[in-house]
Amino acid sequence: MAAPKKVEQITNMDADFAQWFTDVVTRAELISYSGAKGFFVLRPYGYAIWENIQNFLDRRFKDYGHENVSMPLLIPESLLQKEKDHVEGFAPECAWVTFGGGEELEERLCIRPTSETLFCDHWAQTVHSWRDLPKLYNQWCSVLRWEKTTRPFLRHREFLWQEGHTLHATEEEAIAETERMLEVYAETYTTQLAMPVIRGLKTDKEKFAGAERTYTIESMMHDGKALQACTSHYFGDGFARAFNITFTDKNNQQSYPFQTSWGLSTRSIGGLIMTHGDDNGLVLPPRVAPVQVVVIPVAAHKPGVLDAANELWQRLKNAGIRTKVDDSDNSPGWKFSEHEMRGVPLRIELGPRDIEASKCVAVRRVDGEKVEIPLTELEARIPALLDEIHDLMYAKALKHLNENIFTATTLDETRDIITTRGGFIKTMWCGDAACEVRMKDDAGVSSRCIPFEQEHIADTCPVCGKSADKMVVWGVAY
Amino acid sequence: MAAPKKVEQITNMDADFAQWFTDVVTRAELISYSGAKGFFVLRPYGYAIWENIQNFLDRRFKDYGHENVSMPLLIPESLLQKEKDHVEGFAPECAWVTFGGGEELEERLCIRPTSETLFCDHWAQTVHSWRDLPKLYNQWCSVLRWEKTTRPFLRHREFLWQEGHTLHATEEEAIAETERMLEVYAETYTTQLAMPVIRGLKTDKEKFAGAERTYTIESMMHDGKALQACTSHYFGDGFARAFNITFTDKNNQQSYPFQTSWGLSTRSIGGLIMTHGDDNGLVLPPRVAPVQVVVIPVAAHKPGVLDAANELWQRLKNAGIRTKVDDSDNSPGWKFSEHEMRGVPLRIELGPRDIEASKCVAVRRVDGEKVEIPLTELEARIPALLDEIHDLMYAKALKHLNENIFTATTLDETRDIITTRGGFIKTMWCGDAACEVRMKDDAGVSSRCIPFEQEHIADTCPVCGKSADKMVVWGVAY
Repeated sequence: MAAPKKVEQITNMDADFAQWFTDVVTRAELISYSGAKGFFVLRPYGYAIWENIQNFLDRRFKDYGHENVSMPLLIPESLLQKEKDHVEGFAPECAWVTFGGGEELEERLCIRPTSETLFCDHWAQTVHSWRDLPKLYNQWCSVLRWEKTTRPFLRHREFLWQEGHTLHATEEEAIAETERMLEVYAETYTTQLAMPVIRGLKTDKEKFAGAERTYTIESMMHDGKALQACTSHYFGDGFARAFNITFTDKNNQQSYPFQTSWGLSTRSIGGLIMTHGDDNGLVLPPRVAPVQVVVIPVAAHKPGVLDAANELWQRLKNAGIRTKVDDSDNSPGWKFSEHEMRGVPLRIELGPRDIEASKCVAVRRVDGEKVEIPLTELEARIPALLDEIHDLMYAKALKHLNENIFTATTLDETRDIITTRGGFIKTMWCGDAACEVRMKDDAGVSSRCIPFEQEHIADTCPVCGKSADKMVVWGVAY
Repeated sequence: MAAPKKVEQITNMDADFAQWFTDVVTRAELISYSGAKGFFVLRPYGYAIWENIQNFLDRRFKDYGHENVSMPLLIPESLLQKEKDHVEGFAPECAWVTFGGGEELEERLCIRPTSETLFCDHWAQTVHSWRDLPKLYNQWCSVLRWEKTTRPFLRHREFLWQEGHTLHATEEEAIAETERMLEVYAETYTTQLAMPVIRGLKTDKEKFAGAERTYTIESMMHDGKALQACTSHYFGDGFARAFNITFTDKNNQQSYPFQTSWGLSTRSIGGLIMTHGDDNGLVLPPRVAPVQVVVIPVAAHKPGVLDAANELWQRLKNAGIRTKVDDSDNSPGWKFSEHEMRGVPLRIELGPRDIEASKCVAVRRVDGEKVEIPLTELEARIPALLDEIHDLMYAKALKHLNENIFTATTLDETRDIITTRGGFIKTMWCGDAACEVRMKDDAGVSSRCIPFEQEHIADTCPVCGKSADKMVVWGVAY
């Protein structure tokens, strides 16, 4: 027999947050490195989190009338070039296919970094009348962006996402869609991933290549840095004009339709890890955890213990709870650490004395709190406990956000806060891109967004001193 | 107002089956062509069929303990070359990425034509002990094969599929897995797509590049041609040796594990179209049809008709039936033809007189049969009718298969049957690849499989006249 496995050490968060993150994602078997730089393998435990996020989002998309489609992986260079801002933004990150079937291609093909051009090309062929609108499409796929530095979940050369693309007869309808989908994302983050969010508009400098407006959700990681959690773009009719998509409106006039796109990726998994994790490893939000409850038989060799554990598993499974029994021959102590490291929200310990007393002990991953549960009340108590854990995790993350968001009225103050305390900084902003650049150069922060919830912090821009009526949130971003 | 739409003409099946197929897939809006040759757009109505197939398969995979993962899109050339037969088979069809991020790559990367090499590379890093086995993995993705001639659904340069990859401690276990997954596929075809299947083993000439054995499901299309519906491969330990995947077995010995892979693609949608379609268009099997029931209000302007149609829709939706009301301003006649062309299994007509009599008329797409249904019995009768339609479609396809499968004992007879009647031909075979090649050269048929259900047709091979103990099914394949 092989020696019992040891739970491998994880670097202390405060000592080296980046190394902590890498330790956690690899040791919890979420991800592993592949032979091609910047490309990762999503292992079963990591992919299952993505599947749970997918299930929630896909249902919401369909509730709102969206339909799934599949667009080609490759974009001919001439197609990518049709919208100028868009190609300028993405060309430097493209991967190019130049040979196929043993022959050099006449026109090189880009692996999609995003699919606006493909949807436009399709709509130019298929949209003719107001009866054909709106088009509410989504696709689940991977995209490629040739990043120089890569990190698991946060920056891959290939990442999984969904990209929604919609086309509307009016500007109002398209803007409403852009905002609605941002709300769906906010709902996903708060109700599924237990992450508080800041909703807002990107500045022109930070918006998506080709967009008129980019809405964003920004979230704060444990180290105070910002993660752009997802975005929703309003394109106006710019792409429609570039791709010559027209339709006959109700007044029999030829018009250009208005367009949106919005995406959420596996980056969200990086976000939840860096929001909730601790020195013992992952802490998974119950609604997306692949295993919500792990049952650990104590003194499993004693008669009846394993049977009782399996019965408990069956009952929880029937109640729709993702449950696992760890009946391996490792010690209970090893199992406690291992499933703690893997972030399982609830551990149930069940030994001969528990069985005799017709109860079990449930231990919450988030705070270690132990709860005795009569076995008769299992189906009612466990789902309630999981909801409690979700709420606790959300509250904890919200407290962290609120404690690490500061206000400043000068450039010096901004620099001082970011270097001594980190976190997010709220300031006024005059709207001038030059001031935004100086914030980056002199204080080391980038604009995260112009939040929907505005506050009046001062009358003037902290950089140029001119009058300013917008509040911006700044931070150091992943 | 625009003039009412006309249902576009579809080419007659018997006049030109290939053109009929193209007409159907484009006019029913399953698919459309893209700017890159051989790449297609799966439109909502086509993709929804795929989603229904996915849902069934994914549940079955998980029932059998498989876990979903995501492997990289790109394979470094050196990795692809590790298993010799495999690279020989796939290299001619590879698409190569040679530039990324504005720079020429040091090593070119192939877009995955299939992912055996990627799974092996991952397992070489992660499998160490018998405790790590079996690995039962699956991924949903697209793959690229640079085909010269392409056709919607049947032969794409990029196609969607699932690829299962498993690794086992013993040969017996791996072979059992290969056979089990073929059965899951057979179940999918028969119970979901209403398609009869022939299960069997591929000859060495026709097996997958690198496999020891390839199991296949072959099905017969309306024109008598064969479609390879899906395959399941047993690799022995060939890949494990090439990629140096080893594990410590229970006796503390270093061993090579045994491997399988199996895939089913969007080709299956081409198969169901060419099995069930008719001169009026698509005929969709109810269990994968995106819309199972379309409700068409008759005299919709009369008071109460639209409300009654919507109530009917709500009741069927609550009963878990995918239902749509066509309340567009097109004529009922146009709607009948349009939804017939789109293959909706059941059409419900509902007019003022029906409402008064508290009934509706359901019309079966497969045979035009009309059934009166009391509105009170809707929730019981409609699911039963959909099951009946499924059974009818299966029986019809099975009859067609049985009527077009012939036996032959000589090469001349084989050639004669295939040129005059088409279909499948069963003959004995000595096992010599040279005889298989002559069947192709002289009779124009390829071996489809050596069926599991063997018959004794003759004592000798129809080509060489030597003793033969295997029965092979031959045909002209898509």
